[in-house]
Amino acid sequence: MPFVNMNEIKTKNIIEGAEAKMVHTDGMTLSQWSFKAGTKLPEHSHFHEQMTKLISGKFEMTVDGVTKILEKTDIVVIPPNAVHSGIAITDCELVDVFHPARDDYK
Amino acid sequence: MPFVNMNEIKTKNIIEGAEAKMVHTDGMTLSQWSFKAGTKLPEHSHFHEQMTKLISGKFEMTVDGVTKILEKTDIVVIPPNAVHSGIAITDCELVDVFHPARDDYK
Repeated sequence: MPFVNMNEIKTKNIIEGAEAKMVHTDGMTLSQWSFKAGTKLPEHSHFHEQMTKLISGKFEMTVDGVTKILEKTDIVVIPPNAVHSGIAITDCELVDVFHPARDDYK
Repeated sequence: MPFVNMNEIKTKNIIEGAEAKMVHTDGMTLSQWSFKAGTKLPEHSHFHEQMTKLISGKFEMTVDGVTKILEKTDIVVIPPNAVHSGIAITDCELVDVFHPARDDYK
C-alpha cells in the first residue's frame, strides 16, 4: 500500500518521554517523533546518514558540537557517525530520515 | 554545516505553480515543495525510492493507480519506478525524501 497511516503504526518507546513511529523502505527509514517537553535525546551516533525536520514545537539540537534551537525552515543534516543530541524545550514533533534503513529500528 | 536554513536555498521551478528547495546528502535528497492551489504534479516515475509527507494544505496523490487526499498522518511510500501524480487542492506544502540522491535535481 502506498499510503501508510501513521496512526496505525505501532509506537516504539526508544527514549523515555518520546514516542516514535517508523516506516522502512529498502534504503531508507522515516521516523516520526513526538517528544514531551524536557525530554532529552541522549548524545549518540550511527553510521547512517540522517536528515531531521521540525514539524511543531521547540527543539534544541546539537550536532558535532554546534547547538541550535530549530526553526521550521531548518533541515538538520547529520553525516555518518556525527555525534548528536537534543532536548525538547516544549512538546514537539520531529521527522527523521535515514539512509541506509535503520535495521535496529525494525 | 549541520543546520541548513531552507530560506537560504535557491528555489527550483521544476513544475509551473510549484517551488522546490533541495538538500542532498551522499545517499538521499530531501525536497520541500510549495504548491499553488490547482497545480498538477504530472504523472511520472523514477528509479529512486520516495517517501512523501504533507506539511500543510490539501493534496491529492495517486500512486500506482491508487488515489488519496493526503492527511498529515499519512506517509506516502513510492517504490522505484512506481507511476505517481497529484494535484494541489489548496496551496500546500509537502516534503519528499529520495534514495539514491536525485542527481537530476542537483
